Amino acid sequence: MMRNIRLKIEYDGTAYSGWQLQPNAPTIQGELEKAIAQVIGKEMRIIGSGRTDTGVHALSQTANFKSETNIEIERIAPAINHHLPSDIVVHSAEDVPLEFHSQYAAKAKTYRYLICNSKNRPALNRNRQAWVRYELDFEAMCSAAEGLEGTHDFKSFASESKGKDTTRTVSSLALAKEGDLISLEITANGFLYNMVRSIVGTLIDVGRGHITVADVAKMLEAKDREMGGPVSPACGLYLVRVEY
Amino acid sequence: MMRNIRLKIEYDGTAYSGWQLQPNAPTIQGELEKAIAQVIGKEMRIIGSGRTDTGVHALSQTANFKSETNIEIERIAPAINHHLPSDIVVHSAEDVPLEFHSQYAAKAKTYRYLICNSKNRPALNRNRQAWVRYELDFEAMCSAAEGLEGTHDFKSFASESKGKDTTRTVSSLALAKEGDLISLEITANGFLYNMVRSIVGTLIDVGRGHITVADVAKMLEAKDREMGGPVSPACGLYLVRVEY
Repeated sequence: MMRNIRLKIEYDGTAYSGWQLQPNAPTIQGELEKAIAQVIGKEMRIIGSGRTDTGVHALSQTANFKSETNIEIERIAPAINHHLPSDIVVHSAEDVPLEFHSQYAAKAKTYRYLICNSKNRPALNRNRQAWVRYELDFEAMCSAAEGLEGTHDFKSFASESKGKDTTRTVSSLALAKEGDLISLEITANGFLYNMVRSIVGTLIDVGRGHITVADVAKMLEAKDREMGGPVSPACGLYLVRVEY
Repeated sequence: MMRNIRLKIEYDGTAYSGWQLQPNAPTIQGELEKAIAQVIGKEMRIIGSGRTDTGVHALSQTANFKSETNIEIERIAPAINHHLPSDIVVHSAEDVPLEFHSQYAAKAKTYRYLICNSKNRPALNRNRQAWVRYELDFEAMCSAAEGLEGTHDFKSFASESKGKDTTRTVSSLALAKEGDLISLEITANGFLYNMVRSIVGTLIDVGRGHITVADVAKMLEAKDREMGGPVSPACGLYLVRVEY
């Protein structure tokens, strides 16, 4: 009997060329498909909730695959983990209706971004946090972030969006500061390519005083990628969860 | 004029055969001495507050070296960092009296140990936390830890201590739990070889129910390494600070 199995996956993206399968580069999807093939004895395709780029991490990515395997559901995750490298782990597996599709059914996603704002580069967290050595004005960053909440056309903050619908609803965009660490958490009904990293790059520019809070509002209104801020480094970005 | 320069150093120990210089293996001390030689144009020896083992990390290790260099003190750390690999960073440099010795002058040290207590292995933190898949009784671990505070002969918790004074004063031993993460922080006037990892291994045995809180008290009293608990993995251990 055909089953549809949904996985929740954590990974350290440092060593991978992103989520999406590529012929000649290590990818998260590629490692998962290899491991699953070992378990179910058959090659198949898994569908992720979306791609993550080279060096981007996930605390909980969602993916599904179809299979006629009769392995008990509780044994699926441990069996796959046995064949995965140490920087990828499946936290859970569950049977879902056959029509479930990880990408199309996603209602919201949450990303986190970590910035080490210190005069010295981080050593332990070098692949876990973006490093900004210049003192950042945290209050200004928070003000600029507020203006990005809600439903907007985020075209200025999207790479390669030509011809696509670029309107998204950011239901929450919160910043926090603890010592040298600035963290940002953003939830939206969907994200454009490079959207989180462009927003973060823009907020860093605000924090450095290169642009003002008003400039960010103008950027958003311009609906022009040329106006948008720089893309911040991948290593600070984490896919936190996908909601269905 | 001869100067004595004290450094505070953060490192990810994953790729190194510990702190102490070895002829044919990468070590933290070795990388630092190479980088410092590049900066001051001369080879010299640095003195650490103590060794850390293969895979053990430091948030703030202390070391000092003597040199006649006339580089301004504010420029020392950035210059050394320029020549260090990305997993080691010098956070500060300061001139100290010539008689200062990082090891002999140390009055107290604090270590942290992180345990991921989850049915699944950690992926992002695989080299940052020890993994215990069995459910741990946190309250029992705390009770056992309490009995180890104070001045005791820790011979049962020390490897290779033959003929040495094995009495130490643990001024604080605190455990905390947040979600799947159990963290332990211990401060003492000095630590025996493998002492923190033996204490943690013993507390994990208590948490698993293999031994009781009373057994730990008996272990301590026995002053016999054969009675002590197992040594927990290096990757969960961090040198947090050295006090002078």
